[in-house]
Amino acid sequence: MQAAQLGIARLLRHAASNASARIDYWQGDRLCSATHGEIAAQAARLGAALAGRRIGAGSVVATFCSASREHLEAYLGLPSEGAILHTLNIRMADEELAAIVRAIGDVAILVDAALIDRFASLLPKLEGSRLRLLVVAGAADREIEIAPMDGVELVRYEALLAECGPTMPEALRAKADPPEEHAAAICHTGGTTGMPKAVVYSHRSLWLQAMSLCTANSLALSRRDTVLPAVPLYHVNGWGLPFAAIMAGANMVLAGNSFRPDHLDQLIERCQVTLAAGVPTIWTDLLGHRGAAGKSAFASLRRVSTGGAVVPERLIRAFSDIGVEIIQAWGMTETSSMSVIGDVASLPGGGEQRPVGRITCGLELDLLSPEGRRLPHDGEAAGEILIRGPWVTQRYLGSNDRQAFHEGWLRTGDIGTIDSLGWMTLTDRMKDAVKSGGEWIPALALEDALRSLPEILDAAIIARPDPRWQERPLAVIVLREGSDLHPTALTAELAAKVPRWWVPDTWARVEALPRTNLGKPDKARLRALLAEGALAAVTLDTGSNPGRLCPAKEGR
Amino acid sequence: MQAAQLGIARLLRHAASNASARIDYWQGDRLCSATHGEIAAQAARLGAALAGRRIGAGSVVATFCSASREHLEAYLGLPSEGAILHTLNIRMADEELAAIVRAIGDVAILVDAALIDRFASLLPKLEGSRLRLLVVAGAADREIEIAPMDGVELVRYEALLAECGPTMPEALRAKADPPEEHAAAICHTGGTTGMPKAVVYSHRSLWLQAMSLCTANSLALSRRDTVLPAVPLYHVNGWGLPFAAIMAGANMVLAGNSFRPDHLDQLIERCQVTLAAGVPTIWTDLLGHRGAAGKSAFASLRRVSTGGAVVPERLIRAFSDIGVEIIQAWGMTETSSMSVIGDVASLPGGGEQRPVGRITCGLELDLLSPEGRRLPHDGEAAGEILIRGPWVTQRYLGSNDRQAFHEGWLRTGDIGTIDSLGWMTLTDRMKDAVKSGGEWIPALALEDALRSLPEILDAAIIARPDPRWQERPLAVIVLREGSDLHPTALTAELAAKVPRWWVPDTWARVEALPRTNLGKPDKARLRALLAEGALAAVTLDTGSNPGRLCPAKEGR
Repeated sequence: MQAAQLGIARLLRHAASNASARIDYWQGDRLCSATHGEIAAQAARLGAALAGRRIGAGSVVATFCSASREHLEAYLGLPSEGAILHTLNIRMADEELAAIVRAIGDVAILVDAALIDRFASLLPKLEGSRLRLLVVAGAADREIEIAPMDGVELVRYEALLAECGPTMPEALRAKADPPEEHAAAICHTGGTTGMPKAVVYSHRSLWLQAMSLCTANSLALSRRDTVLPAVPLYHVNGWGLPFAAIMAGANMVLAGNSFRPDHLDQLIERCQVTLAAGVPTIWTDLLGHRGAAGKSAFASLRRVSTGGAVVPERLIRAFSDIGVEIIQAWGMTETSSMSVIGDVASLPGGGEQRPVGRITCGLELDLLSPEGRRLPHDGEAAGEILIRGPWVTQRYLGSNDRQAFHEGWLRTGDIGTIDSLGWMTLTDRMKDAVKSGGEWIPALALEDALRSLPEILDAAIIARPDPRWQERPLAVIVLREGSDLHPTALTAELAAKVPRWWVPDTWARVEALPRTNLGKPDKARLRALLAEGALAAVTLDTGSNPGRLCPAKEGR
Repeated sequence: MQAAQLGIARLLRHAASNASARIDYWQGDRLCSATHGEIAAQAARLGAALAGRRIGAGSVVATFCSASREHLEAYLGLPSEGAILHTLNIRMADEELAAIVRAIGDVAILVDAALIDRFASLLPKLEGSRLRLLVVAGAADREIEIAPMDGVELVRYEALLAECGPTMPEALRAKADPPEEHAAAICHTGGTTGMPKAVVYSHRSLWLQAMSLCTANSLALSRRDTVLPAVPLYHVNGWGLPFAAIMAGANMVLAGNSFRPDHLDQLIERCQVTLAAGVPTIWTDLLGHRGAAGKSAFASLRRVSTGGAVVPERLIRAFSDIGVEIIQAWGMTETSSMSVIGDVASLPGGGEQRPVGRITCGLELDLLSPEGRRLPHDGEAAGEILIRGPWVTQRYLGSNDRQAFHEGWLRTGDIGTIDSLGWMTLTDRMKDAVKSGGEWIPALALEDALRSLPEILDAAIIARPDPRWQERPLAVIVLREGSDLHPTALTAELAAKVPRWWVPDTWARVEALPRTNLGKPDKARLRALLAEGALAAVTLDTGSNPGRLCPAKEGR
């Protein structure tokens, strides 16, 4: 067989030959449109223009953009020339970003003009880094007024592209592709638990993950779709959706810098979006917005992919009621995003906890016990989920974190089970599990049960030190409007749904849960509030009721 | 990213972890069933048992089977151990097969017991080859009575597998995979035009082609499907369907040794087949059979993939009328089968000739003029279709056929156009085109037009030498029952549909078209019959009517 390289250059050529599929993008205050072919032509010029400035093979170019047209062009154009795309998470603190840019050695940054004020505070902190070129792209509502330091040149995107002529499909077909195992992109893991870690994606891994998103068991992205990534493109390569959309020849909608519900709603209607992907909070907010506006069913939307946090049953039902299929996805920065996929309709029911899905063919799962043994895939044994495969990272860049790996497998830090049909069910994050009386109380399952109570809008479980049981669960809850906190009543209701020893003996009410960048409950923040005594917690007198709180061995 | 090998061992492990998807297989006179996990366990034992007899990595093992369970186990089990699967086309002549077995150096042959009589005539011709083991699999209606020559051992499949214990999924997960660029399978091209040529598939190419069949733009094979390959598994790896079904976790139905319409109809109904794939003749016959039995719509069948020959409009309409989607596929042994795919529903209409489809992302098409120039993709310029990509062959085994390649691209021998939206339209096979007055008359388009006439059931165009125009088309036709051959009337009808200079001046009527193994009209045979004077051709007096037959430059 031919020694053909899988990778972004191949995707760029595929886009160049597609004069029908559209990219709709929000710029400034309006919706614009281009074909895949037009995007590819611009992308090829971007790559060539940078290469002409000796920012080519092996150079790392950062982006400080969200979901813009130029960001997509960088996705395709930089790796096609052998350069490496490094998407900065604009929500990180300046100090963190500056450390990242320095550590990776970014020589250029592509900045969205609409984010220039945000960027202006970062820029001075990059003094002394390897940075030598700033490219400002997109519409700004006023003149760009940043003064780069000595040795750093500022150029507008259009001016940069004008430095090289149009690139023809024939010329692209005649070029050699970068080797598929070479680096194509870098993302950093979320920074909520210590310093962000760098994951390097190869051309091959990006290609294969995109192809997996196009398979019918996954998102089934096809040329009949219009896909809306309701995630910033700096979040794990936009979950791989930009590459998958190019591969499928699907229309794609880039939302710009806002993921507000009214904006997304407008885009879904105007662009006739058929498939959208984002964290559960995005969808809860969107349905809330539409409900308030008296709208229910969507005209075009058929599938919603969601992940990054547990998908609430209420959200699944709400979408199902209006004929939208929910596709659950689990993944990590380290697994190139979505890796375990489950269309809710096909999930086996009946258990205490709903499975997340099955592993995408190509990747493999296994289970590790706390003692380092492999556990059977019988749906009973719970252990740390291990994952391996061609789009799973082998290591972190610039780190020798052996703890994160086990015999060639990535340790995910998630606890769960795998059954004989291949369904993975997550019971908890290792760091979030409550170790009570020698057994784990799965916080996620307990939160699900809490959210199923009519009084409770949202809930997070954290561990509270306990002299007798080592740890006991503390329930932090958000009540529905008009409800009151009656821990005793809630306790009784909950005891009908979960093992009695899981039932929290301490309750705290908050107006809203603090959340991370990714929309997950920020448990680190909750733990800090607890330690500061800033959570007004009500503790029930459990001493008088040991039966209710007896640990696993006795109470089960 | 992890250095993980794409390949059959990974597929085997994926199957091993799937205890739900079914393989239904026809054996003897009944329908049996096994799960993917059970098939994987048997496949692993087959591979290990052969390896235990020093038929492991690098050894070539031939199969003389059709669509049987054991054949599928060989598909998975042999390459997983590093051995190479060589599927013999049982319809080839013994001399041809013996030459192939010798040339490839097959050391073992897996023979389906039901085909033992057919095999018995081949066996003596393998004297002196590297063959040392015959494995007989499956049910036979009587004792196996073949006497292998000295040095060749005969063993039953079950006895061979009993030579090694059951293989557990955990053991499979601990094994290293064969390198992905290593050979996994060998197929020979159809032998109708000279000696068959050997194409070697790598683990990687088989994996990627299977994954492409699972994408939504292609067959969209998923775990919700039950797929019936209505092709023998020796035909281009069963078009890649066995690997794709394992990858998708789809149910699959193996038809055994018969593809008769009543048998397929029964299987589709009993196994609730949702997707089936085969040459157009298979489907024409199936619909004919069902029509005769007074049946129309299928209960489960939703998609039919067909290729290997032009798909008649009548067939497309017949399926569309009963709610079955037709997926057109074009491919070659050299391109690992299906490579250009078009769901008929999305095909642009209006032109003289329907496009075949668009290239699967990963492969690329280009056009070559007779003078060796690349031609634009404008839907107008017609040239030889070139194809390249990671599942296209780079060369033929044991041959230095440079003519078949051009600057790293495979020359397909098909003539066609590509438009700006990426649609490929075939106008002809190079060897079938009629060169009349300095221009090509596309035989396929002319045949399509002929078949659209109410009197004509089937048609083939071959070139007839002509003193004035070099070549002129000769129409070989099969009339519908009750119709008569009136060339003059047909000529007038046809002239309303195609350029007048295409209209054949010579007509021959046959009861049925001779066909190749693959169901294509056997034009080599027709040319031979013409040369022998065995085609009763009626030639119209065209001398008196030059306008009707004037060549391109004048008549268009």
